[in-house]
Amino acid sequence: VTPSPLVAALRDAAGEPHVLVDADVRAPYEIDWTRRWSGSAAAVVRPRTAGEVSAVLRACAEHGAAVIPQGGNTGLVGASVPRSQEPRPQVVLSAARMTTIGEIDRATLQMRAEAGVTLGALQAAARSAGLDAAVDFAARDSATVGGIAACDAGGIRAVRHGTARMRVAGLEAVMADGSVVCRMSGLLKDNAGYDLPALLVGSEGTLGVITSVLWQLVPRRDARALALVPVGSVSDAVALLVAVRQHLPSLDACELMTDEGLALVLEHIGTTSPVRRAAAYVLVECAARADPLEALAAALDAAGVTDAAIADDTAGRERLWQLRERHTEAIGAAGIPHKLDVGVPLDRLAAFCDAVQAALTDGARPILFGHLGDGNLHVNVLGHDAAEESIDELVLRLAAQHGGTISAEHGVGVAKARWLHLSRTREEIAVMRAIKSALDPECVLNPGALLQPRT
Amino acid sequence: VTPSPLVAALRDAAGEPHVLVDADVRAPYEIDWTRRWSGSAAAVVRPRTAGEVSAVLRACAEHGAAVIPQGGNTGLVGASVPRSQEPRPQVVLSAARMTTIGEIDRATLQMRAEAGVTLGALQAAARSAGLDAAVDFAARDSATVGGIAACDAGGIRAVRHGTARMRVAGLEAVMADGSVVCRMSGLLKDNAGYDLPALLVGSEGTLGVITSVLWQLVPRRDARALALVPVGSVSDAVALLVAVRQHLPSLDACELMTDEGLALVLEHIGTTSPVRRAAAYVLVECAARADPLEALAAALDAAGVTDAAIADDTAGRERLWQLRERHTEAIGAAGIPHKLDVGVPLDRLAAFCDAVQAALTDGARPILFGHLGDGNLHVNVLGHDAAEESIDELVLRLAAQHGGTISAEHGVGVAKARWLHLSRTREEIAVMRAIKSALDPECVLNPGALLQPRT
Repeated sequence: VTPSPLVAALRDAAGEPHVLVDADVRAPYEIDWTRRWSGSAAAVVRPRTAGEVSAVLRACAEHGAAVIPQGGNTGLVGASVPRSQEPRPQVVLSAARMTTIGEIDRATLQMRAEAGVTLGALQAAARSAGLDAAVDFAARDSATVGGIAACDAGGIRAVRHGTARMRVAGLEAVMADGSVVCRMSGLLKDNAGYDLPALLVGSEGTLGVITSVLWQLVPRRDARALALVPVGSVSDAVALLVAVRQHLPSLDACELMTDEGLALVLEHIGTTSPVRRAAAYVLVECAARADPLEALAAALDAAGVTDAAIADDTAGRERLWQLRERHTEAIGAAGIPHKLDVGVPLDRLAAFCDAVQAALTDGARPILFGHLGDGNLHVNVLGHDAAEESIDELVLRLAAQHGGTISAEHGVGVAKARWLHLSRTREEIAVMRAIKSALDPECVLNPGALLQPRT
Repeated sequence: VTPSPLVAALRDAAGEPHVLVDADVRAPYEIDWTRRWSGSAAAVVRPRTAGEVSAVLRACAEHGAAVIPQGGNTGLVGASVPRSQEPRPQVVLSAARMTTIGEIDRATLQMRAEAGVTLGALQAAARSAGLDAAVDFAARDSATVGGIAACDAGGIRAVRHGTARMRVAGLEAVMADGSVVCRMSGLLKDNAGYDLPALLVGSEGTLGVITSVLWQLVPRRDARALALVPVGSVSDAVALLVAVRQHLPSLDACELMTDEGLALVLEHIGTTSPVRRAAAYVLVECAARADPLEALAAALDAAGVTDAAIADDTAGRERLWQLRERHTEAIGAAGIPHKLDVGVPLDRLAAFCDAVQAALTDGARPILFGHLGDGNLHVNVLGHDAAEESIDELVLRLAAQHGGTISAEHGVGVAKARWLHLSRTREEIAVMRAIKSALDPECVLNPGALLQPRT
């Protein structure tokens, strides 16, 4: 079979073995983790270097193809797989072969990682050098550095270390026209010109394809202590966070669960609660060089907490953490949830939770949990009495009405592009569109993600 | 006298008393702090609100005027005053009346400050609430929040707290067409769309006029200890930084001086050195809740330092700090220096210093000092045997050749726009120009700053 001119050009760009065209080989690249989003690719190309990525993007531009950048394909908003409605041929640009991790610079604690390095590999490299990658979330063994930066991913430890943006000490990316942007000197202070890396972080592959990141590591703090605290309400949970935070510089995670979610998890794993049942629960974890147990206990004591379960040994911490970490699994066993990722300022978080509970009456059952320290809640809705889109829109509207965002850490993607106006003004979206048009006039990169196609 | 149509429109936008047209009233807004840059303004306008700024920008666009945004007019690169070569009428847009500081949110430690709030006022507001603004530099009583964010200013404490970018938890700005961009919810996680604040920070007033910042404060750590350490070379200074940093999480500042600079200061203030004379000196300051003296002493001991001067009382610290802080004054007393602000990666910093010393032979005398922790050096050159521009270019080229940046914390401005290509590739500058053209097609905002006018 003679390859199409597009496939021939991709083979020239990345080498024949790295252009996948057989349907069964392409298949895993064409459907996302949620199984909600899929589309057909003319080819999947797996370049090795930024230079090859540049050649791939030039080939796609020349042959009128759209490019779908893909890291670990763990995104939850449909932006990592081909669009079902795109009229042009689509090429999945996979980072799977860009997996080199560089040496650690001991003076700056920075480490170069190519886009396809998984978070787990990054964490392992940091750990083996006595350091810490400072970002963590459940998809760690599949999610890759490029996707993490492109989405400004967050996770459990952002309350201390910030989101992925804070880890990006340098970045290399290829723009739609194949030109390469590279700022990898690692200088903390470098204000020579617009901070293009800062714009690319969080742009979800719509402005450029990230090929390498200079990752800012932090010193390791291995001594950990964890408390599970029952509280009377989400409002009490927020008050507890505010009270302990100021006394705990070692605060490393602060997570929220409600009793609905805990009940599902307890039933799912067949155990009983280690603390009295209450409306909500807060997990407070500290990490320090020396055991932070005493500081944690003192902070809880000062906040009037008398009935927490506390652990500073690994087994005890894991027993408590699984009550939070197995939410997704327990919810999945109870039904097929709608999953939404929103952020709401702390002073309105309780009101938002109440509003969600009040609004979902027709058999829909919300399970709320997430990263209390960041006001970042994962709203999972079980039950099938409402059409999916109407539930999504309802929850996102409530988040916006409470001063929050429709996307905290998952990104906008294809799933939420139509609702971007809930969090951003018409004028702000016009600025975003102007930037997109200037840098990718033919909309080659990730069409339909983040910004809706113009109609 | 009938006002010009431009002045009449500005009066409509901001109110007649706030449009300054008399030459003597305009004068201080028309010349910069260095006295090196000046130009004539058709008017100086001092709006009070973002809405008024928007009206001013629309008026300027309509009447074909360029806009020069001005905060405290403490910039060192000529970007805060009218251009001498600009053919259009120029309007200085001063933030002088936008001086409101909001309440501190105790849950997030964030505080809203309008663009015209001085760093000193911001620091005082933070201090009176038991908190810390986490940025400091010498121009604190004039430099304003808007300019600090627009230039991504750095200063002495960036080694611990990062540059101004890290303080910007939210931002409001007015774009060239008068549209307002506002992201002030203060959410740590909010990846709904491109991070326009991140692009505006460091854009030097060329993409938008910053009108408010939500400033991220940090807890106060009042116990301080300071050491002045003589070292044999810049190379030894870097080694000392790397050695102490890993043992001192409380490290708050790490400054470098050379013996040439110290000699000038000692002579200028008429005192003797508190430590033995050496080729270079490092100031190491720690800040913590409890007195960090012991930790500092132990870290120095572990690094093999035996002859440091150490102080943990206010008077003693001030005596040591003045040796660094009075450099500018002492150098100014010795002549009219060329001042350059560069950043070089730590592993090449010593080689860069040697190269500067070797290159400046014809009566030019370089004094190097600055923020060792960030690789950020202020190169001051005394002596008049070389033409100013050739010295500037020589030093900037050496910084670039050593993998560094031509601007660490002062910005590019008008002064260094012609040399931006030394730090950024042609392709990167093309991306910057595309963004500028998309957001400010008539180049109304700060023309000639950061990007050279197209010829």
